[in-house]
Formats: sequence, structure tokens, C-alpha cells
Amino acid sequence: MIIAFLKSTICPRLQYKCIKPVPCSFSPYLRIMLIFLSEQSSDSQKLDILTRLETHGVRGYATRFGGRSVVVAVESMPGCFVDVTALHEAASRWDGIAEIVDVREPYQLGSKRVRPEGTVISVRDFSVGGGSFGVIAGPCTVESEKQVLETARKVKQAGATALRGGAFKPRTSPYAFQGLKREGLKILEKARQETGLVIVTEAMSIEEVELVAEFADIVQIGTRNAQNYRLLEACGKARKPILLKRGFSCSLEEFLMSAEYILAGGNEQVILCERGIRTFETYIRFTMPIGVIPALKSVTHLPVVVDPSHAAGRADFVAALSFAATAAGADGLLVEVHPAPQKALCDGRQSLTPDEFADMIDTCKKIRAALPK
Amino acid sequence: MIIAFLKSTICPRLQYKCIKPVPCSFSPYLRIMLIFLSEQSSDSQKLDILTRLETHGVRGYATRFGGRSVVVAVESMPGCFVDVTALHEAASRWDGIAEIVDVREPYQLGSKRVRPEGTVISVRDFSVGGGSFGVIAGPCTVESEKQVLETARKVKQAGATALRGGAFKPRTSPYAFQGLKREGLKILEKARQETGLVIVTEAMSIEEVELVAEFADIVQIGTRNAQNYRLLEACGKARKPILLKRGFSCSLEEFLMSAEYILAGGNEQVILCERGIRTFETYIRFTMPIGVIPALKSVTHLPVVVDPSHAAGRADFVAALSFAATAAGADGLLVEVHPAPQKALCDGRQSLTPDEFADMIDTCKKIRAALPK
Amino acid sequence: MIIAFLKSTICPRLQYKCIKPVPCSFSPYLRIMLIFLSEQSSDSQKLDILTRLETHGVRGYATRFGGRSVVVAVESMPGCFVDVTALHEAASRWDGIAEIVDVREPYQLGSKRVRPEGTVISVRDFSVGGGSFGVIAGPCTVESEKQVLETARKVKQAGATALRGGAFKPRTSPYAFQGLKREGLKILEKARQETGLVIVTEAMSIEEVELVAEFADIVQIGTRNAQNYRLLEACGKARKPILLKRGFSCSLEEFLMSAEYILAGGNEQVILCERGIRTFETYIRFTMPIGVIPALKSVTHLPVVVDPSHAAGRADFVAALSFAATAAGADGLLVEVHPAPQKALCDGRQSLTPDEFADMIDTCKKIRAALPK
Amino acid sequence: MIIAFLKSTICPRLQYKCIKPVPCSFSPYLRIMLIFLSEQSSDSQKLDILTRLETHGVRGYATRFGGRSVVVAVESMPGCFVDVTALHEAASRWDGIAEIVDVREPYQLGSKRVRPEGTVISVRDFSVGGGSFGVIAGPCTVESEKQVLETARKVKQAGATALRGGAFKPRTSPYAFQGLKREGLKILEKARQETGLVIVTEAMSIEEVELVAEFADIVQIGTRNAQNYRLLEACGKARKPILLKRGFSCSLEEFLMSAEYILAGGNEQVILCERGIRTFETYIRFTMPIGVIPALKSVTHLPVVVDPSHAAGRADFVAALSFAATAAGADGLLVEVHPAPQKALCDGRQSLTPDEFADMIDTCKKIRAALPK
Repeated sequence: MIIAFLKSTICPRLQYKCIKPVPCSFSPYLRIMLIFLSEQSSDSQKLDILTRLETHGVRGYATRFGGRSVVVAVESMPGCFVDVTALHEAASRWDGIAEIVDVREPYQLGSKRVRPEGTVISVRDFSVGGGSFGVIAGPCTVESEKQVLETARKVKQAGATALRGGAFKPRTSPYAFQGLKREGLKILEKARQETGLVIVTEAMSIEEVELVAEFADIVQIGTRNAQNYRLLEACGKARKPILLKRGFSCSLEEFLMSAEYILAGGNEQVILCERGIRTFETYIRFTMPIGVIPALKSVTHLPVVVDPSHAAGRADFVAALSFAATAAGADGLLVEVHPAPQKALCDGRQSLTPDEFADMIDTCKKIRAALPK
Repeated sequence: MIIAFLKSTICPRLQYKCIKPVPCSFSPYLRIMLIFLSEQSSDSQKLDILTRLETHGVRGYATRFGGRSVVVAVESMPGCFVDVTALHEAASRWDGIAEIVDVREPYQLGSKRVRPEGTVISVRDFSVGGGSFGVIAGPCTVESEKQVLETARKVKQAGATALRGGAFKPRTSPYAFQGLKREGLKILEKARQETGLVIVTEAMSIEEVELVAEFADIVQIGTRNAQNYRLLEACGKARKPILLKRGFSCSLEEFLMSAEYILAGGNEQVILCERGIRTFETYIRFTMPIGVIPALKSVTHLPVVVDPSHAAGRADFVAALSFAATAAGADGLLVEVHPAPQKALCDGRQSLTPDEFADMIDTCKKIRAALPK
Repeated sequence: MIIAFLKSTICPRLQYKCIKPVPCSFSPYLRIMLIFLSEQSSDSQKLDILTRLETHGVRGYATRFGGRSVVVAVESMPGCFVDVTALHEAASRWDGIAEIVDVREPYQLGSKRVRPEGTVISVRDFSVGGGSFGVIAGPCTVESEKQVLETARKVKQAGATALRGGAFKPRTSPYAFQGLKREGLKILEKARQETGLVIVTEAMSIEEVELVAEFADIVQIGTRNAQNYRLLEACGKARKPILLKRGFSCSLEEFLMSAEYILAGGNEQVILCERGIRTFETYIRFTMPIGVIPALKSVTHLPVVVDPSHAAGRADFVAALSFAATAAGADGLLVEVHPAPQKALCDGRQSLTPDEFADMIDTCKKIRAALPK
Repeated sequence: MIIAFLKSTICPRLQYKCIKPVPCSFSPYLRIMLIFLSEQSSDSQKLDILTRLETHGVRGYATRFGGRSVVVAVESMPGCFVDVTALHEAASRWDGIAEIVDVREPYQLGSKRVRPEGTVISVRDFSVGGGSFGVIAGPCTVESEKQVLETARKVKQAGATALRGGAFKPRTSPYAFQGLKREGLKILEKARQETGLVIVTEAMSIEEVELVAEFADIVQIGTRNAQNYRLLEACGKARKPILLKRGFSCSLEEFLMSAEYILAGGNEQVILCERGIRTFETYIRFTMPIGVIPALKSVTHLPVVVDPSHAAGRADFVAALSFAATAAGADGLLVEVHPAPQKALCDGRQSLTPDEFADMIDTCKKIRAALPK
């Protein structure tokens, strides 16, 4: 059944009728329901469900989520609306189904409806989401073993449970230092062995995702690759948590759709990271849109951390942004710390010293204690 | 002495040499120094100073600040740079001068250099700046005496010391309700008499500034009038504190230059108010650029408050934005509270109930206690 | 009849259902219909119409448009939807009505439905809209009689029919040159007497609107006053055409609602002027959003001109922006021309010489000839 | 020699001194000079040059440009400034050097100084830059052989010399149609064989660059991959021209630095494509910043084309945007044309019919004829 009227009215970018509606940048209707299969369901039952969906004008994507088999049901063709109520009713009589969740967002597996209690991501001592506050700290760039080990020890002492540091560096200039690459990964591995800190580092290509996943604990995807869909697909296949930065001009929906690429690929360990957006403002490198924290937490179950350092671009604003992010309900922070910021190869001006970092984290803990439960 | 080279290099919007510099939207060089006169200085000494300045290619504006006579010295012509060091040296030998403050910002009286300890603005029980946290609350619009008095009593109980409420409403549509006007002012006056709360309400024209100043304690200038210079000049002449909202797309410098209009007019009681900026984001009505708080506090002595309600446009984000603003170092909040948000004539969806407001303020106080002194 | 469902679905900023809709910055429902009265209609008939509208939950604003009496009908209360079809049917049986125009935009008198053929504004030799291309040129600021007269003669020779020049200057700094004021108006008047050019100059307050209307032919409202509603109301009462600049961050709807203030006040001679918007771009002073031209022309009958000079902020981009605006369908241009740009008191870097201007206008005419009729 | 003072003053994002400068998003100092080697230069001479550069604190990147060997010289360490004059003087005495070009932009090979006459890119009948206007047209997505062949014939007849069509589609939703992939490439190849049109189609990963380069004539890089540096490196190695779209929020400098990745890799056939930027505007899908055309053409030798279809998001604005782009000096257009827009799988609302396209191109040619030579 086609409900053309609804189509035009629920389009999120619909303007006045006199101005023809602009096409949505993602298909707003590619969302129907999640069909969780029962544990005893057979492969032939799954196939049967997929076939039946097609007769309703719906395509099913089979994947796994929360340790369960799930079929993500979406319209098979843009432009035709499915009668969801009728489909839900029909599907509830099919075999092999444990639960049907009606999802009204284009991001389905990322929707809060799927897991209202929130996702917790834990690696050893590091934990983020569900009441846990994850503190990731370290230098922008891995420069040397000495620099990394010294920073690692100090940020651990200050309360960090994860170490960040770039081995593969996305640089605006092809002539700029591009990172120590594999050698940098080995230095980070050494820091893990010595301190037990969880290692977070960036990958920029499919090959690097595999390499980083081998050496590190959490794979970071940078803001410039936030809509690099081939890279996100590779993250979906990785067996390590992904820290996904928001594209610096991506909408909240686009951000969640990028996460959905990873979730749909079968990797449900996604940490969302806000790092500032590009606006007309010039007193700061990127504008920190603090309202994104309650906004994300109201629609998704994924944990949300904030990178105050790249947003600020200057050390003297990092503490205020961190306090604000904590107070607004962030699940963690990703902070640049360098033992000698003045000597950093890259972005030194935005790095805290270990002592400044320790004081700052101390205050963040007090702020968290002040928040309503 | 003309230093043409410097002129091009310090222009804040200077681009690469190959792209010719774009003219700055305000003259970046209209700033030299503040010359505070000694208490014993005579009128003829002041005139003498103004004349001497002109021989240095500098114009002097005589006004008062901090209870003292001051001459604001600026270039008399754009395009020629003054040798500030030589002028400072010369001026220090003139008669009748108590202190010379070299100001490097285009906002001179608003610069933090003038009053590093910060300005405190106090009206009865309401105090903002210098360690005091000012809480202003109330309905968007004055609708009736009953509504205003009920809200006033409840927000006072919850810890507010000032009451907000619009009698003159700036509305995008000429056909929309424009406020109760003078009748609304009388209702606000009644609320003050009954509760002792400080009254904050908006003025939109020179005449309204005078009228509002007569009935209310603090005159509010809205975001759409943030660069209405004739209105700002009228505020400079008012004998009441001004709550100046940032234009929703004004730069930090433009915001401070608007404040400078008021300061230059002789009224130094200016409260800056961030209420969100316009960006590409759509999950929220206006993006709350939380970094503006440490940015403003690093360059100006004026107190900074935040309006989370107009930024959010929805009640469920107001608490998170308020917590963030408090944690980032804001000196106060301006919050919409309505006894029955569902029935509000305007902007009800962003109003808190008095109970929600009381809980929120309670948490804000705890957050303030957690911040480093 | 209240149609609550529709209310939520047609809100232009409605987001996903899971995110509660943000309140619209203007009431999107304050629009119903325009009721044009017949020439013979009596005052008592008009009163009768207004009373009858109220019984339908509708308020009527009586004004004049196109030489006819008209009642603008809008909802009397936000939050309740009027059954427009029923009202239209009922009203078509009332006495004294010549025509009913259903308007679906919040801007009613500005809607293209009211005058599909477009508004033409003509003053002596200057004409804009309806196929006429209006060329307004002159210095940013009136500096001296010599400068203005020299420029006036040259721009007239180059094909301009109107002269621009600021006597009252909105300046970001209170310490910057604020214009020659009344003396500047007299210089402009002299230029009109000598050349016959139509004079366009800015007003910044209610008083200045009256003064400018006395001396000049067209009153300009600047970008910083685009939502100064008291000033727009004063323009509604002026008997001279208004050149209304778009606020540098106003939406297209807000721009048209500002024009609606003037139209609702009884002045239907409004020229819309795009002058660039504020974005993250830095190679140019303001981004020229060229699509605004077809967008405006598809929804309003008002003529649209473009100011390439303030957008560019540099002379070498002015020709390309002017060609683009002409090709996109603009009804005219507002260009800064200065006999000696290097010596201009303000914004010289963006001024063309008279010769550059003459060549540019020549090309614009050829481009217009190339466009489909 | 280190010139620390200069460093701070030429930083393009430098703010007021009182606000510490924000770090630039790319190193503004990574630019010194291009050293073109003479044809007779030996490998040992090249090695000698690289070694000598290092003693001056400069790194040299050896690549090829314009059929010549070139060494791109950049600072070896951020934070230290090289005495360019002294280096230039010294280098001019070294052996094997044909020409030294001082480049003051961070994009070196892309700088207009290197080739002031502009780059022309030609493939069979398609030519763009240097006075040639390249017209690329076709459907958003390759849907079927019939659709592509029909469109190809019609756009050729209307004056297009290149055919666009997506085989690999970047989609915001992982559940949306992702393109016909290799099968789509084969359909495009067939269209080339039948019509002779040059084929332009997108690649999203390193592997796809290779595959697309095998089947198509020009490889397109989409807006979401505009800063996917690994992909750009792969384009640098491709032996086909690259059509590089601007990231929808990339600055002009970032856009040119992305092109520099391709140029530095040895592929100098780069076509820049503006497709609209993200702003607060909602009447259009992306704001078309028309000033970017003169801005780019003033600093780079690379040809600039415009995609009006993705910017507009609606067919009725495409002609006006195309006329504007042509008038502003664009070197070509990339337009969506679909034989039956209503039935398109994707983005149909923004596609022109072949007839509309033919009329539009006809007008564009007339506009080009009207422009000054």
C-alpha cells in the first residue's frame, strides 16, 4: 500500500508547499522495523522471512546485534510507503521471530528504542557509557617512544584509562609529516604493555583498519573520514570498538547514519565523538555545539564522548569545554596531553600538560557527582 | 608616523598575500589607548589633551568609566597607523592624567585590561559577575497579571533573584501577538512590588528604552537588535543596567563592539548574554557555542550570562545547556519558566515548569561548587 | 475546527518524531487568506467582515494594497488550525468582497499569488522589476560635495539611473566615522538636482526614515536593521520606496517577513536586496548565495536586486558577482563606485572606478539579452 | 634562520593579540618554492639538490609536473621559518636547475604562479579550461542500459561532450541502493562506444579508483571523500583526469590542498568542481557560493566546473544556477539529466529533461559570448 501523502508530510526538510520540497539528503523512508529472530530460528526460517518481506515491498538485511540475529527491514524502493501497521501485524504471525521493534528513525540499530538502557563499551579498565565515564588522553601524534611512554605513565596516574596518539595522521598538506605509521603502532603497543592503558589510534584506509585493529584496542575514525563509507564498512567488519568522530559539518542524522554503517556491518561497539563543527566563529577553531550531547543521548543508545582539544585549538579553553561536556552529560573525554606542549610536532598549542590534565579530570569527577542521577 | 606594513599584517581577516586582503568589517585600527584623567583635572586640561591628541593624528572621545573621566583615543583616519609608543611617552608628560591603559582590542572600555577583576552588576538582591551567579527566570511573554505573579512567586522560591517577561515582543510576523506593551510593564511592576524580584524586560526602540527604564530594573536588548546602533546609543544614556543579547550571527568582536556603544555612551552596566548562534544544525533551534564563555571571559570584564531556553527551543534540553553553561564559567542564567507551558501564548515548548526549574538551579549550584576557585 | 495533526506535520522545522519538534521561529500558521474589498464596500461592511472573521477564530488586519482595501486574515491564536475551506466558502457569501486569495505562506501581501506578474517600482528614470533592470551606483559614504557630484555624473554616463551614498553610516565601532548625516543628505539632494539621478540612502532610526524620505527618493534599510521591527513599521508609513537588505543570516522566510512588516503598514514599494550571508568561508567577506534569486522570484512579486560590493569586500570580484546575479535573474544591482577608491574613507577596497563600472554594466546588458524571455 | 615574528603575523587565522592565535588547520608555512630541474639534469644532481635543501632546514619532494622534473621544497619542521631569499639565492647557483618559482601559497603545484595561462584538460571531444567550456551531463545513477543509452544520445545532441552517471553511489544510509557497481561501469563503457562521449563516474575507494580508471575516462571524487587522503593519493597515481568535488564545508584552501595531494602524486589533470556548501539556508539543498569561481580562478591554474544539480536539489533552480556559474567564469558544468526524472531511483527531483537541458546549454553559450574576453 502506498501512502503518498504521508511521504511528503514527514520529510524532515519539507518546506512550504509553494516551494517544492527539496530531496532529502538521505532517504527518510528507508526505515521500517527491526525483526529479532528467536534463538531457535533456522536458516530456512530466516530465508522465509526475507522472502515474505519482499512481497510487502520491503527489503531485509540480515545481521547480528546484541548477540542476536536480526533482520533490518527497509523499503525496497524509495517513493513507495509501506503500511507498517499491516506489516507488523502480518509479521507477528510468522515463525522464528522473537521480537519486532518499530523504528521511526532512519538509523535503526543505532536507535535508542533498540536498547533504551544504553550501550556500555568496556576494554580492560576502560569503560564508557551506562554510567561509566571514559577518559582517553595522550599526544596528538606519536613522535617517539620516550614521549609516548612518559605521557602514558602520567595520564594513567591522572586518571586516564585509555591512551590516544596518532600513528597515521590525516594532514591537510601532502607535504606535512604524515605520522610514524607502523613504527608508531609498535610504540603504542609498548605503552600498552607497560601501563595497561587501552590504546586508541586512527585508521584512514581499509588496510589501516586491519593493521590498527591488530595493534590497538580501539580504532579511531577521524572527522574527514566520517562519511567515507568504504572505511566505515571496513569498521563494521573489525572486531574492535570504533571511536567515530562526527564530520565537522555533518548533521546529527548523518552522524548516526555513519554509525549505522558500522552497526549494520555487525560491529556494535561504536563510540560517538563530538569534536566541534565549522561555523562563522573565529575565536575558536571549531564551535563546540554542546546541545548535541543531550540531543544524541535522547535518540541513540551509543555512548557519546567529547574531544575538547581539537574544538578549542588552544589549551586555555580545554578545561572549560571539558567541564561543559561533562555537565551536559557526556560519557567521556578525549583530551590531548603532551609532556612538553611547546615542542610538539603538531597541534602543541592545544595540548595540556599532565598536571593541568590531572587537575581538570579531578574537577570533571566532582561535576559528575553534582549531576542528577 | 605611518606604519603601513603593520597595518596589513595585523588585520584579523588577512588572507594569503596572493588573495588581496578583504576589508575588515570594523576598522581594526580604531584603538589606541584609554587616558584616565586625574580627579583634580580641569576642563581646560581635558580640552588640552583632546587638542594634543589631534596633532598626533588621534581623535579623543571624552566619557566616564568607573566613576572617572576618561578619554578614549582612536585613530582619526582609517589607513594611517599611529606610533603608539611615542604617543604613550608623550602623553605621560601631559597634565591632568592619572593613568594610561594601552588597549590592543577594538573594544576599549570593554577590554579586560581596563578592569581585570571583572565588573559586578548588582540591583537589590540580584548580583551578577565577580563570583556572583545571577538567576533570571520567568515567562517568555507577559500574558496576564495572574500568570506573572504566580510565576514570580515560584521562581523566587526556587532561587531566582530576577524576573524576566516580555511586554514588547519582537515577532517575525507583523500579524503575530506583539505583547501587552505598557500594560505588561505595569504587571511586571506589580510583580516587583509583591516579590522584590528585579525586573528584566525588553525594549525595541529608543522610546521603549526610556519607558522600560522607568518601570523595570534591567533593560534587555534582543538578538535582532544587537546591531541596532541607535538603540544601543539610547542604552548608553539609560541609567539602568542593560542585558545585551548576542546577535545570532554576530562574531565575538561584533558582540563586544555593540557593548562598546553602550559603554562609550556612559553606561557601564552591561550584562552580555549568549543565546545561541545560527548554523546548519537542525536538532536544536540555535547552536549553543559553549566556548564563547571562556572566550569572552578571557577578553572582557563584563559579566556573561546564558539563555538556554531560546537556544534549545525545547524544554528537555534546557537543563543540560544550563549545566554546561554553569560548568563553562557563566556568571548567570536567563531561563524561561511558565506555570503551565502547554498554555503559553508563545514559546511554551521551551519553558520549564517551576518545579523543573527549582531542581535545575539546585544542580547548577552544586556544579559551581565543584569548579576550581 | 482544530486540525492538530496537520499542525505538527506541516511545521517547516519539524524533525523526526522521536525528537520533539522545535518551535518555529515564526508562527507558521499565521496565514489564511487575503480578502480584497470591492470598491463600493462601506466602512460598516468592512467592520462586519472583521467581526465575522473573529467568530471563525480568525483576526483581520485592514490595510491597503495595490490601491485596494484588503483584510489580511490570520489565526487569532497560535495552536489552533482554522478550516480554511469552510471559511473561504462562508466568506464568499459575505457582502463587500471583491476577491479572496488563499495564501499558504506566512508572508501574505508579499506572496507571488497576490500579484503573479510582479511588482514594478519606478521613480523618474529609475525602474526595477517587471523586466526593468535597475542600476544603482555610488560611493559607500558621502564624503564631500565634490566626490558625490563627480561620481554622480560618471555613473549616470555609465548607465546608472540611481545614486547611492551613505549619509548615516552604521559602523561596528562607536568611535568610527558615523557619516555626514543631514549635511550628507543635502549633498545628495544637490546631486539629484544636477543629474536627475534617483537618490538611495540609508536610515537607521524612525526619525532618520522621516528625514531621509524628505531628502531622498528611496530609503535603504541595512542588513543590521533587517529585523528592527520598529524601523520596519516606520518604513510602512513612509511614502517612499524602501530598499530592504537581507539580514546577513536571515532565512529567506525571515527576509520576506521583514518585507511583510512594510507591506502590512501600507507601503507596497519594497525592493529586496541580497548582499551576502555569513558562512564559514574566508576568501570573501560574505558568501553570495546566488540561488536566493530564483528562490525569491518563485515565491514573491517584489523585485530583487543584488549588492555585489558588500558581499565581495574586494573590487576584483565585483564584476563576476554582478554577471552571476544578472544571469540568475536579478532585477538590478547596487554597486559601489568611487572616483578614487584608494582614497575612500570607508570600504574603498571594494569600490570600482567609474570606468570599470561602465564596462561591467555593458556586459550585464549583454547577459540580460542572452537570457530566455 | 628562524624568523619567529613573521610566523605569528602571517598566520591566516591569527586573531587579536589578546586572544592567543589558534593553530592553523594546515601548516601555513609548509611552502617555499618549486625547483624545476633542467632536462639534462642527472639523478645524482637531483640527489645533490635534495641534500643541499636539508642543510637549509628544507625538505624536498621530487615529482613531475608539466612534463618536467620538479622538487617541491617545504620546511622540514613546523615552527621554524626558512630565509627564502637566501635559499633562493643559494639555489640559483646549484647545478641542474632550470627554474625556481617562489610560491607563497600552501598549495604549490596548484598555484597559479606555476602556470598563469591555466591548465586545459582534454579527452577526445571534451575539453575544459583555457577558454574551453566542458559540458558533462547524465543521470545521477546508472539504472539500466536503456536509461543510460537514451540519456547519452540526447545529451550529446544537446551539446554535452561528456556523460556522467554513478555506478558506485555514496549513500548516507547503508540500507539504500548502492549502485550497480561493475555492471554499471560496463553500461557506461557501452555508452562511450556508441556515442563517443567521455565517461565521468565516481570512485569511493583505492580499488574503485583503479577499476573506474580502467572503464571510464575521468574519475570523480565526491564531496564526502574530499579529504579522504588515501583516496586522493590513489588518484595521484591514476593515469586518468580526476574531477574533484569540493567538500561541502571545506575552505577554499582545504579544497586546493586536496587537489595538491593529487598533483603531488604526479597526476596534474585535476578538474575542480564546486557543488554547494552547507549553511543555515533551507530553501535550497546546498548554498551555491558563486564567488568561489573568481576566487579559485585568481589563485589556481586548474579548471573549475560547477554542479548546479546537487546544490539546488530541485530542477527548477538548475538553469538559474547554471547561468550564474557561466557568467561568473566557470569552465564547465556537471548537470543531472534524466529521460524521465519522475522515475529516477535517486535524486530525480533535481534532474532536467533532455529538452530542458538543451535549452539551458543554448543560453549558457550565449552568456559566454557576452562575457569580456
